[in-house]
Amino acid sequence: MSDTVQNVCVRLAERSYEIRIGHAILDRAGPFVAEQGDVSDAVVITDENVEKPHAIRVAESLARESIAVDLVVVEAGETSKSIETATLLWEKLLQLGADRKTVVVAVGGGVVGDLAGFVAATFARGIRFIQVPTTLLAQVDSSVGGKVGINLPQAKNMVGSFLQPLGVLIDTHALDTLDEREYRSGLGEVVKYGVILDAELFEYLETHKEELLGRDPEVLRHVIARCCRLKADVVEQDEREESGLRAVLNYGHTFGHALEALTGYGHLLHGEAVGIGMICASRLAERLGRVDGGFTARQASLLSALGVPTQMPQLDHDQVLRTMLHDKKVQHGRLRFVLPRTMGCVDLVGEVDPNDVRAALFDENP
Amino acid sequence: MSDTVQNVCVRLAERSYEIRIGHAILDRAGPFVAEQGDVSDAVVITDENVEKPHAIRVAESLARESIAVDLVVVEAGETSKSIETATLLWEKLLQLGADRKTVVVAVGGGVVGDLAGFVAATFARGIRFIQVPTTLLAQVDSSVGGKVGINLPQAKNMVGSFLQPLGVLIDTHALDTLDEREYRSGLGEVVKYGVILDAELFEYLETHKEELLGRDPEVLRHVIARCCRLKADVVEQDEREESGLRAVLNYGHTFGHALEALTGYGHLLHGEAVGIGMICASRLAERLGRVDGGFTARQASLLSALGVPTQMPQLDHDQVLRTMLHDKKVQHGRLRFVLPRTMGCVDLVGEVDPNDVRAALFDENP
Repeated sequence: MSDTVQNVCVRLAERSYEIRIGHAILDRAGPFVAEQGDVSDAVVITDENVEKPHAIRVAESLARESIAVDLVVVEAGETSKSIETATLLWEKLLQLGADRKTVVVAVGGGVVGDLAGFVAATFARGIRFIQVPTTLLAQVDSSVGGKVGINLPQAKNMVGSFLQPLGVLIDTHALDTLDEREYRSGLGEVVKYGVILDAELFEYLETHKEELLGRDPEVLRHVIARCCRLKADVVEQDEREESGLRAVLNYGHTFGHALEALTGYGHLLHGEAVGIGMICASRLAERLGRVDGGFTARQASLLSALGVPTQMPQLDHDQVLRTMLHDKKVQHGRLRFVLPRTMGCVDLVGEVDPNDVRAALFDENP
Repeated sequence: MSDTVQNVCVRLAERSYEIRIGHAILDRAGPFVAEQGDVSDAVVITDENVEKPHAIRVAESLARESIAVDLVVVEAGETSKSIETATLLWEKLLQLGADRKTVVVAVGGGVVGDLAGFVAATFARGIRFIQVPTTLLAQVDSSVGGKVGINLPQAKNMVGSFLQPLGVLIDTHALDTLDEREYRSGLGEVVKYGVILDAELFEYLETHKEELLGRDPEVLRHVIARCCRLKADVVEQDEREESGLRAVLNYGHTFGHALEALTGYGHLLHGEAVGIGMICASRLAERLGRVDGGFTARQASLLSALGVPTQMPQLDHDQVLRTMLHDKKVQHGRLRFVLPRTMGCVDLVGEVDPNDVRAALFDENP
């Protein structure tokens, strides 16, 4: 049963790559990397929380394939997504003699993936890159789609690139060691995929709440594969966020980013902020006559059952609005939102009245 | 006469762009940028040597097209191609509210173009970019082809991206204010194009030495357009340096880079090091029976007439060899060279005997 491996293929203009999802498959990282061909050596980048046992297991598997491996460990946490840490990694790659036969393997959550990916995208104008995401959020979101980057002190993800990985290896067993709050935060992004793209997935989540909370490997494999497929469908059509299609993935994010910024990064986890942001966006859709109150309540009910917060923290209305206007996704001061129409179907709505936005933030329902 | 403008179109998989070459055309930068469409504002990046009059002229022309312009001036010199300066520019772009309707316009030599291009490639995962090269070297080489980047303290161009500009505007009049030695150094790269790709260009240079030394606008326009076309032909077929074809552009560079590194950056200008490197590579080709002594002498004669040095500086043989082995273009310790076969025709030759390389460095001829 848990030996079943599921594949999602991401087909891009330049080339395709595979997302391989299974239970306890970190030991197969070596063959997965070796399959990519012409790999002489690998630099595994991880953080101090993930090093043992996950990154070491990946490194050992690579070594068994006769790939020369170096393991580089950065500090855990968002502060590592910095110019300083990127500089240390560039210098480390230089010192290790990394070149175009080297593969950078990121083992960790979104911070490690984004950071290592940016370093791989820019070292010697780009060397190869593989993602081994070990948090639920990274498995369903940041490891798919090619966005990599670091933060400026004043703004998240402000420096970055698009770099499609050679491949992504997702081990649901790695989630067993994940902190409960972080795990549940990842479920917030999972619910988002149902609302924006897949009513059937949303229903599946509603009927498998217990298995999800119990981290059941088969249910997780199915759900993660579905989320990756949905994200891949969008990314395939709008790889570089040019057509606007990719924007649908930002449901709940305009509100969510503002909440993260205002409460101080780290206070709310990303998936938690997105959960609250989805409810705000759904309330905004209600105000615009797009959905009814039951639609918002259904999302809030599923999120709550999965332990994702949906209640707005105490914040100043106008400050939230001002912060949203500074989001890098806001084009020249016009507020645009991804808003639901029915379950699994959203639209990008421009020129929203700021008064409606303000009201949606602090509606007493649900 | 000098009103004639010549265009070179670079056709790439994703999109095409235009290199526009003319005399005293900086005043037309505004329409050139406005033509690209949907430009709300521009950030002109330059250095303190180029600011007056070139960058200011470009900025004024942009302003006449109702494009909001900011001018950012960095220190002149290779030391600005650093993580520190890139960070200042990222923060400046954030502060100016730059987004996907912003165009970064680099006005200057290779340092400014490489730095500004890297910052544009990575700010918000890539904003648009236009090159206005003002040195001969940048006009025929670094502004074409999409390579952008910065240095690590230990290695040049080690961090970077491929970013094709929206367009390149080349003003031969800007060369009138260029320092004589820097101008002549640029002629070294021009001669290179003749040797590697175009026997007719080489002959044209031989018969127009006086006009070149006198910076004749029409001869310069013809020569620069030809070099851009030749480089574009190569880049169109090997945009990301994957097939090996793009490597032909590195004729003289494996030797040249080692000379630059060993004499201390700035002692030899890049085009000077390439000039000496071409003679070394040609002598190596002689030793391998690919060309005769007259072939090397012909290059040396043209380079000397154009004021490009061809004499090897006093350096330790083995140190030069060791430095070459550390070039990032060396794959896993195997020395590969671009070597001539006949005028306008070169090959990539692998597995060269280090003894032949050492001998070629210090041959007494020509």
